[in-house]
Amino acid sequence: MSAKRLVMDPPQNAAALLRARTADGALLGPQDVDPDTKPGYGGGKAEGQATLAARATQLADLQELLYANGRAETGQDHSLLLVVQAMDTAGKGGILRHVAGAMDPQGVRDVAFKKPTAEELEHDFLWRIRKHVPEPGMVGVFDRSHYEDVLVHRVRELTPLPEIEQRYQAIRDFEQELADAGTRIIKVMLHISQDEQKERLTERLERPDKHWKYNPGDVDERALWDEYMEAYRIAVAETDADHAPWYIVPANRKWYSRMAVQELLIEALSAMDLSWPVADFDVEAEKRRLAAS
Amino acid sequence: MSAKRLVMDPPQNAAALLRARTADGALLGPQDVDPDTKPGYGGGKAEGQATLAARATQLADLQELLYANGRAETGQDHSLLLVVQAMDTAGKGGILRHVAGAMDPQGVRDVAFKKPTAEELEHDFLWRIRKHVPEPGMVGVFDRSHYEDVLVHRVRELTPLPEIEQRYQAIRDFEQELADAGTRIIKVMLHISQDEQKERLTERLERPDKHWKYNPGDVDERALWDEYMEAYRIAVAETDADHAPWYIVPANRKWYSRMAVQELLIEALSAMDLSWPVADFDVEAEKRRLAAS
Repeated sequence: MSAKRLVMDPPQNAAALLRARTADGALLGPQDVDPDTKPGYGGGKAEGQATLAARATQLADLQELLYANGRAETGQDHSLLLVVQAMDTAGKGGILRHVAGAMDPQGVRDVAFKKPTAEELEHDFLWRIRKHVPEPGMVGVFDRSHYEDVLVHRVRELTPLPEIEQRYQAIRDFEQELADAGTRIIKVMLHISQDEQKERLTERLERPDKHWKYNPGDVDERALWDEYMEAYRIAVAETDADHAPWYIVPANRKWYSRMAVQELLIEALSAMDLSWPVADFDVEAEKRRLAAS
Repeated sequence: MSAKRLVMDPPQNAAALLRARTADGALLGPQDVDPDTKPGYGGGKAEGQATLAARATQLADLQELLYANGRAETGQDHSLLLVVQAMDTAGKGGILRHVAGAMDPQGVRDVAFKKPTAEELEHDFLWRIRKHVPEPGMVGVFDRSHYEDVLVHRVRELTPLPEIEQRYQAIRDFEQELADAGTRIIKVMLHISQDEQKERLTERLERPDKHWKYNPGDVDERALWDEYMEAYRIAVAETDADHAPWYIVPANRKWYSRMAVQELLIEALSAMDLSWPVADFDVEAEKRRLAAS
């Protein structure tokens, strides 16, 4: 069977299917979503991978259109920000490689937020984030984000609770400000089960070429699984908004989560309804100049 | 015919084939290299594209090994810097998308050096470059570079000639310093003919979805083609070194230039002869902890 035969329609309206806020306004947490499911998709792994490959061109074309508008300074100051949060091994890296990696690297900025530096700790928690918000025309991809400051900080009690509560408000204000400036925000929690994580960590330990990815601290975090899920539930409830929606993406199947995030990006870029910038020079005159050159 | 049947051996020892310094020590300029050729490769476009796709996995694997060593802080402080210089339309963007884009974006930093900002102009020409040299484990890709300061500055007389001459020395010192710190430097000039550029610019003018890529200034630069080639010849001669070699890559065929640059990267990473970092934790003890978690 050729790859083409395997391509199926991707999840239709992925944004509605995966949104943490349901149609009737209820807010879901990861506890309400089964990480083994594949909402909106009837196919299996082979079909899902074929669909992902087939849709990559459409995503790249839409991203080029966004980039072209940014470069041409058409005044349509759109940009896109994808925030990816997850427990370890859930597949953040795969989203960067296989979904965002299919777009033109010139128009995509990946930022991995690690443990803050001494300088970063001297500032407000959003200080280092603000430096990396995408400029017009650009796609920003945050591998971890300001949400670490209300997730691990809440679970590990690194910050007093009243200050955590203030941070939700600060995040709401910050994301509203970004949205007002033309940034479309998509917040994804890649949701795996605790058992799936154990399998993936086990594989890292069994393969010497994967040892470098293993961190003994990961097992300590596993012990706090329920606390993390609760911190996610609260963060989602506190910060979901129509201009900065949260999506809980089942991720026990890597191929499904990649296809789903790809669809979220395609839908968000399509909704911008952009057109190619009109030339700000005389096309016919330039043709003559070029021909004579 | 399946894609697999089309895969041919890539150019063997691309570094020697494409190096601006020949085996007998003579230095070549772009004037000495025919942009229509495809050194070391007997196949056509379909074969070349199949070979590029087939070799992408090997490049990505080698890059992961580099990244793993950087992350594990094994003390093997290697990094890789690809500098891409070219006349407009020569295919810099395609190298970023189709060659560098096949590596894990987490380990690759693309930097496009545009017209310097007011702040950048207040500093030495290498000031903004130094900020972006790759850290251990990383691949840096410079889309234009410090070479603009001896290319366009020489041709357009933006800087007095004695200062241009000093810049060659500054570049030699800078690149020596990088190499001493463990950075493998690969400098590529994508070499197209003036006629090929005319065809590519014409296409941009004929397609409304490409108008945003067209800049009337490109035609002005074309008028200085010979001066640019001479500036390249001098820059190559002044700054080629075994630790920072120049490659003049024929680029009238995009597929050839991409395959060739891919091979240069594969050869450079292979020559680092890296191995997977050894675990700095007790693997068996971790397996037990994980199983119990």
